[in-house]
This record gives sequence, C-alpha cells and structure tokens, in this order.
Amino acid sequence: MLREFEFIAERLRPLAAGSAGALDLEDDAALLDPPAGMTLVLTKDAMVAGVHFFPDDPPEQIAQKLLRVNLSDLAAMGAAPLGYLLALARPKALTDDWLTGFCAGLAADQRAFGIGLLGGDTVSTPGPLTLSLTALGQLPRGGALRRRGARQGDDLWVSGTLGDAALGLLVLQGKLEAPAAARDFLIERYRLPRPRLALGQALRGLAHAAIDVSDGLLADLGHILETSGVGAELCADRLPLSPAARDLPGARDAALAGGDDYELLFTVPAERRRAIPALARRLDLPLTRIGRIEAGSGLRVLDAAGDEIRSPRAGWQHF
Amino acid sequence: MLREFEFIAERLRPLAAGSAGALDLEDDAALLDPPAGMTLVLTKDAMVAGVHFFPDDPPEQIAQKLLRVNLSDLAAMGAAPLGYLLALARPKALTDDWLTGFCAGLAADQRAFGIGLLGGDTVSTPGPLTLSLTALGQLPRGGALRRRGARQGDDLWVSGTLGDAALGLLVLQGKLEAPAAARDFLIERYRLPRPRLALGQALRGLAHAAIDVSDGLLADLGHILETSGVGAELCADRLPLSPAARDLPGARDAALAGGDDYELLFTVPAERRRAIPALARRLDLPLTRIGRIEAGSGLRVLDAAGDEIRSPRAGWQHF
Repeated sequence: MLREFEFIAERLRPLAAGSAGALDLEDDAALLDPPAGMTLVLTKDAMVAGVHFFPDDPPEQIAQKLLRVNLSDLAAMGAAPLGYLLALARPKALTDDWLTGFCAGLAADQRAFGIGLLGGDTVSTPGPLTLSLTALGQLPRGGALRRRGARQGDDLWVSGTLGDAALGLLVLQGKLEAPAAARDFLIERYRLPRPRLALGQALRGLAHAAIDVSDGLLADLGHILETSGVGAELCADRLPLSPAARDLPGARDAALAGGDDYELLFTVPAERRRAIPALARRLDLPLTRIGRIEAGSGLRVLDAAGDEIRSPRAGWQHF
Repeated sequence: MLREFEFIAERLRPLAAGSAGALDLEDDAALLDPPAGMTLVLTKDAMVAGVHFFPDDPPEQIAQKLLRVNLSDLAAMGAAPLGYLLALARPKALTDDWLTGFCAGLAADQRAFGIGLLGGDTVSTPGPLTLSLTALGQLPRGGALRRRGARQGDDLWVSGTLGDAALGLLVLQGKLEAPAAARDFLIERYRLPRPRLALGQALRGLAHAAIDVSDGLLADLGHILETSGVGAELCADRLPLSPAARDLPGARDAALAGGDDYELLFTVPAERRRAIPALARRLDLPLTRIGRIEAGSGLRVLDAAGDEIRSPRAGWQHF
C-alpha cells in the first residue's frame, strides 16, 4: 500500500505541478498572489462515501464530482476558478488502484477547468472515505452574484434541464426503471455535474440574484426568496426536462424537489429578457424562463392552466 | 436535534458575524479582498475522531485544536491569520450539546486570534466525526518562510519545549504515569497547541527556513534537510524539555520523535545568533539553539559528550 509520503510525492505532487503557489506541496501551506482589483471567492464542500456517493462509484467520477460541486458554487457567484485544496480521509480498505483512479479524475478535470492543486491533507480514518475540497476563484471587485438581490419584476431563469440527477439516483438505487440510453444519461447527470462557470461569469452585471440548484429547485429558490425578501410565481409546466427524463414517472417532482442538478437558477430584470436567448446560443446551453419574482413573500407553483398546485417536499437538509 | 439549517443559522452564523466576506453564510461561497501587496497563505488540515483526538475529549478543545493546527501551519510560513472555512461531517450520535461546546471553542479562539468563520459545509456521516478546516493568512509579498532555504552554517533553533504533547497522549492512553500537575500540563499541551504566530512573523527576513513540529522533530527536521539539500547536527542534550516532561521516562525520545508539539523549528545564520535572545524576551517564549546545519546530507544526533547516538523511529505517517 502507498504510504502517505509516497502518495503525496507520487500522486498528488504531479497535480500541483502547474500551480506555482503550491510550492510542490513541500511546505506547510500554499501561497497565492491574487491579481490586483480582483476579489477572491472561497467555497468548501465535503462528501462522504455512502452518503454523497456510492462506495463503488468509479473513483475518477467521485473526484470529478467533488471538484465540480465546488466549482458550481464558484459559478453561482460569477467567479472564474483558480485552484483548490483537498483533504482525504482514507479507510484502510481503500486500494492504491482506487487512489490512482481518483487522481486521474482530478487530473482530467484540472485540464478541463484550467486549475491546479494547491495543497491539503491526507489522513487515515476507521470510517468511510471522507473528502473535503476548498475551491478558490476570482471575480472583478464588486461583481459577485448573490442570492439576495432578486426584485419584483425579475424573470426567473434556469439553465440546462432539471430533475435528471435525482432520477439518476433513483435508477442507481434500483427504485426506477428506465430505457438503457436514458439510464446512462441520468446516471451521468448524477455523477458528473457540469458547473456552469461560463454562464455564471456572463451573468455578472445582468442577473440580480443567482444560486446553483444543489438542494432542489424549490429549496434553492426558497433561499433566493428568503434572502431577497420577495415572493415568486413558478410555472411547473415550463420546467426544462431532458428527453431522458420527460416520460419517466415522477419527472416533474424530481425537477421541482430533486437535488444535485447543479444548474444555475437566476433572476434577470424583465427589460433585459431579450439578452438571454443570445447568451444561451453563445454558451450552447438552454436557458429557460420558468417564472417571475413578485412582491411580498412565498412561492406559488402554477400548472399549465395557471392554477396553483401543491408542491412536493420543500427540499433537502443534510441532517 | 438541531437540523442543518438551524445549526448554520443559530450556531455558525454568529461565528461569521465579524467577517464581512462571509456574507452571513447566506451564499454559495465567501468573498475576500486581499490587501494590495500581500500574498495569501492557504492551508487545510483534517482531523478524525479516534485518530487525531479522543471522541470524549472536550468539544471546545477539539475545535480549538482543529483551528490551531492550521494556524500553526500559517505560523510556519510567517503569515498572520485572516479567517477560516470549516467542514463538519456529523455522526447521528453527536448531540446538540456537543455542537454547542464545539462552537464555543471556535468562538473563544476567534477572539484570541482575531479571525472569523468565512464559510464551509456541514454533512452527515455514518462514520466517526470528521473535521476539516481551511485557514487563510497573509504576509508581505515575497516574505514567506519556506522549508527549503537552510544553509550550511545556520544555527538550528526550536521554540518552547518538545515532547510534551507525545507524553500527554501516553498519559491519556494510560501508558504513562505522571504526577497530577504534570499530567494536566502534558494533556493540555496535547489538546491545546499554541500556534507560534508572533514568532513566525518575526522570523520573516531572519530565518532561512522554518517548519512547525507536528510530525516530530526528527521527521520535520528531515523535511527541512531534504528540501534544502543539506545535513545537520543535532545535540540531543540541548532539547528543551518542560519541567513536567523532564523527569519522565522516554522524555528525550518524545522530544526527538513525538508529534503534536506545534513548536517552530527554524534555521538562522550564525552571524545573526545574537538577535534571537532579544526576540525570545519580546515574545516571552523560550528559543533554544539545538544544533546546526551542515553541508552534505543526513542528520547526526549527538549526546552530551559529542558522540553520535542512534535515533528512535524517524517520524509519523498518517497511513
């Protein structure tokens, strides 16, 4: 079995090679000189085997999901990613092959997102594999997108499609049957989120409020409404469903309440509505108007006829 | 039991109140505007119940140890602390009282070190309590202390006393008997490290190399020698032992190879030797010259007569 210092030297150091401030992982801490005029953006998410992923998920994809859920938080703030720190608590049973796959997943995503490993920690654990990642990003000073900021008259928009990840999880749990092609698509949506980094950055100066859909649309929209002190009307029949999800039972509930899609939910003043289709084309990413922000408080979910419907469970709490 | 959002709102948000960039923990990420001309310093350490602390250690002290081992990494680089992010994986059995104590420990140390919570994540785990903390610090651009940098002719210095924490751990494990006063002192040294932040900052421009003694003197000195491409001579009889440790069996081995003391080990050119006693007085912290850096490679440990002695196990690896 790779011992700690070998693991660091042979597997992690190459991941830090592109980051000058990582100091080849030689030192107690990493250094970062932020460019003048930029604000640093910092986020930290943890994942536990058996809770946030299946222990037998491919290690490459576990690494990528860990990185991407953090990058999604950066996207929601409108930031461009800079680098990350990693903590890994390793159970004895975790093989060197697993670690090799995990590091390969990190390497692939480092290339995809143009970032590098800055530092971190490796420890042993008698419990399940536990991962924590701190991602750093940057944006022009004063340019951060916030959850608060939504105003009466804003349109409510969402990127991509909703509910796929929650349906993919049901498929993996054996609770949902789906055709083979749909299966693969939904499972990949659950395992490999696509942080909407380019969209987040494009929304700076355009959106009044933004959040990534990690806990479920209703819960995450609730965060926007609560912090902004406004209400909203949501058109359930406008929710963007993928071809794979569309015909499955529970697709609309998954789109309303399922987590893990990591799309961006954002509000844009109605007078700038016409800017969005051009943005969608430029990013090659569907952007769908699903409702509007209203004065007051509370959320009304409407069906195609405009009648209010009872919404499913309101969201996800980790404990 | 406190649910996740209550825990964040009621316990964690107050810890973030002093950090403007924490955005009241309302958003997906934290913001930080680093002062011009400063380099950011980033470190991340993880701790697991039953591995890095006893599950029945006081929760206040677990919080403080978690924070302080990270601050010690900042100290070793010569940085002043700015803030931190926290990830907490909570087992079901962890009580709200435990969380209250944990947050009280964080609050006390936030005041002591002048820092605040910036963000983080809370998740559940079927395994042991697992904690990860990312600490941020700053120092003037170009001023970081490194492990590499030790040169032939440097004196080798260490702060405080060595071996206390390792002996405190043996006491807690029931493997070592000690008088009551010594017991309390050693256990506190194990549970409550004192990050040498003022020393680290004072060593900028004075020390050629520095590291904190977390894995044990021999192991951490080894890191300095290896990265600097030099050797060293260490005088075992000069190792600073506390009155509590001095008369206990195994004190010298603990000072040589025991971890968790979180003192600073650093090298200073011999011609600046006279600056150190004044620094020690100013900081009210013993600084002891324990050897010197030599050309070549390898470490010789000498006894009082100047004869080489066999050193105990060379250090600690986490797996």
